[in-house]
Amino acid sequence: MAVAATVASPWSRSLDRVQQRAIKREAVLRTAAALFNQFGYHATSLAMVAERLQVTKPTLYYYVHNKEEILFECVRLGLGLLRAAIADAAASGGSALDKLHAAMHEYALIVTRDFGMCLIRVGEEPLAPEGRRKLRSLKAELDHEFRALIEEGIAEGSLAPCDAKLAAFTVAGALSWIGRWYDPKGPLSPEEVAHETTALLMSGLSPRAAAAPQRAR
Amino acid sequence: MAVAATVASPWSRSLDRVQQRAIKREAVLRTAAALFNQFGYHATSLAMVAERLQVTKPTLYYYVHNKEEILFECVRLGLGLLRAAIADAAASGGSALDKLHAAMHEYALIVTRDFGMCLIRVGEEPLAPEGRRKLRSLKAELDHEFRALIEEGIAEGSLAPCDAKLAAFTVAGALSWIGRWYDPKGPLSPEEVAHETTALLMSGLSPRAAAAPQRAR
Repeated sequence: MAVAATVASPWSRSLDRVQQRAIKREAVLRTAAALFNQFGYHATSLAMVAERLQVTKPTLYYYVHNKEEILFECVRLGLGLLRAAIADAAASGGSALDKLHAAMHEYALIVTRDFGMCLIRVGEEPLAPEGRRKLRSLKAELDHEFRALIEEGIAEGSLAPCDAKLAAFTVAGALSWIGRWYDPKGPLSPEEVAHETTALLMSGLSPRAAAAPQRAR
Repeated sequence: MAVAATVASPWSRSLDRVQQRAIKREAVLRTAAALFNQFGYHATSLAMVAERLQVTKPTLYYYVHNKEEILFECVRLGLGLLRAAIADAAASGGSALDKLHAAMHEYALIVTRDFGMCLIRVGEEPLAPEGRRKLRSLKAELDHEFRALIEEGIAEGSLAPCDAKLAAFTVAGALSWIGRWYDPKGPLSPEEVAHETTALLMSGLSPRAAAAPQRAR
């Protein structure tokens, strides 16, 4: 599995202190996420993160306390990106169908990138109960927002009547799975994957000509 | 998250030795899988497995060497169940569409149960590189078999023309995700979830009346 891109080490830039620190911390997190995605959380050490950023391990401790904090932040950032995508889509105007389509497409793109991929490949599982609980509650909010978009589409009539909760999980599952299998070195671009997967979820596997009757619940 | 069922402790039965050992080992694995699914891999100790089975921790070591071996076996068994479901469906005769439908339905049911759920919720991530590599190669075979069913359906004309690899991942993702969110104490039975999710993947989110044109690749 290939890493999407190596993060350029930002230690040499001259910016004001707070901004510099934020940029460097983000570089630490992003580099760690890329390594977690490639080698797995347990097989990745802080020494590997330091090496890739060409800094010493003690330097890292200026930005993060430990590997667990890094994972927590990576997963939180991944969830934040997905929630922002849904919120942007929801606020974009247009039909419920357009919003859902935009949210699905963006969701697919996010899970091909460092933090989104880390959310899917590693997730909160390795964390202590408190961290797991916090991230699960953020996930539950994400599920809710996604479901609301689907409910809106059903109410509008642009989506087939279905169990919105189950449909939201079906869509989120298919899109999230991209983060597991997607290989940036493979033949498909993130855009192509996002486009095709979204289209497939919208129109289904069965040919549209031989339409089966819709089952409403 | 609720555990599907507590495994009855089989230490008291009188069967021949080899058979007894196999039954007891399976009880150890299944109990561990249920605990991993409920509490997470890292938060589950062998002492908790022993306690639930009402045996001493040293007794467990007669069946398994360590927690890592248990997880490896649970994931391997989960993958084995999915592969058997696909193989059964493929051998069942009938149209390619019937086979795919049967495989999808069974796949969904399996991930609501201990080993299948453990494959999805924990997976091979916490294992050492050799174990991870072995399980990933089994996963790749599973992906291949699933894809072959979809290719057969496209060739038969009962599935819409699409990128079979991407369609297989989309379906596998949506079905696998059930193992993440499914709660046996929730309102839906595994049968209902399997039925609805399979139907949704087959017909898509868009109403069949307002069919969008199919995009072939």
